[in-house]
Amino acid sequence: MNTLINLQSKFELFSELWSPKVIAEMNDYQFKLVKVKGHFTWHEHRDTDEVFIVIEGSMGIEFKDRTVKLNDGEMIVIEKGVQHKPFASEECKVLVVEPRGVVNTGDAGGSLTAENDVWI
Amino acid sequence: MNTLINLQSKFELFSELWSPKVIAEMNDYQFKLVKVKGHFTWHEHRDTDEVFIVIEGSMGIEFKDRTVKLNDGEMIVIEKGVQHKPFASEECKVLVVEPRGVVNTGDAGGSLTAENDVWI
Repeated sequence: MNTLINLQSKFELFSELWSPKVIAEMNDYQFKLVKVKGHFTWHEHRDTDEVFIVIEGSMGIEFKDRTVKLNDGEMIVIEKGVQHKPFASEECKVLVVEPRGVVNTGDAGGSLTAENDVWI
Repeated sequence: MNTLINLQSKFELFSELWSPKVIAEMNDYQFKLVKVKGHFTWHEHRDTDEVFIVIEGSMGIEFKDRTVKLNDGEMIVIEKGVQHKPFASEECKVLVVEPRGVVNTGDAGGSLTAENDVWI
């Protein structure tokens, strides 16, 4: 690639919520943009950590023992096997980093499961 | 971890240029902050891609055939084996993502080689 990627320009290309779009690959890892609002489903990723970086807005992540609030310029590593449930009261723009092939709902499935590996 | 990381707060913890500081690990990958100003050395990473995400300021990356300018909110994947030379006229704050163990000067060595795996 070696090509410049403007995050805001990429965010303007889609409007669906909870539907990650791939913008780049680094080795076998993907950088995905996702817009979140409302409550996602409880789930875990059994085989991998994942990273959320908030680009614009605010969101929260519920864990079984606590809730973490993230604003823009903040990130979190969610370790593999840890149950979590993202949520946001207003639309929030997030950069997700994780291995290629990770499904957004992890082990949980359900109606919020997005098509995987969709590039914009 | 599952702990919130504020990028600007982490940037305030160091002032050295061209000296990446690890702030998080995701599987065997690291997220590193680096402040850049001036001209780095030409180098490549033979075994891995790497990602630069500009958090604040502007920087450029020279490739053998062209130069790419990045502003905050922009990112680039530098593919393995591709010679590159970062530079910045004013101090620029960058988030780097790459596998654990990658040395900043890659194959080139020299005086700008930073100690690796330094956490803040």
